[in-house]
Amino acid sequence: MEKVTLNVLGMSCGHCVKAIEGSVGELPGVSNVKVYLESGKVDVEYSPTEVSLDKIKETIDDQGYDVN
Amino acid sequence: MEKVTLNVLGMSCGHCVKAIEGSVGELPGVSNVKVYLESGKVDVEYSPTEVSLDKIKETIDDQGYDVN
Repeated sequence: MEKVTLNVLGMSCGHCVKAIEGSVGELPGVSNVKVYLESGKVDVEYSPTEVSLDKIKETIDDQGYDVN
Repeated sequence: MEKVTLNVLGMSCGHCVKAIEGSVGELPGVSNVKVYLESGKVDVEYSPTEVSLDKIKETIDDQGYDVN
């Protein structure tokens, strides 16, 4: 299990939290995801053998946000 | 048919637009609703014999926004 903190632009409200935590949390291999609106950060705990960091970033991007 | 412009606080993203236009637009007696994110305004066209302005405001409030 690894833990990463992503910087995400454009998250502004409770719906954004739900959209990201919901979609990333549903990925197989992701065990935990937490959005911090104020700092624009997303903490993700995942198993690199099951899901790639690229896939996690792509999932956030697909919800309409910019990920660094 | 009447038209009113409401000032709504807390609308920040596309999800907010959808939440408000969806919920208000579903009210019987509402024929048109349009959210303007930049100005924080919501235009609503409604029939006062079918739906009250209070009910429209309450619906927006229920979605988690402050209406003036």
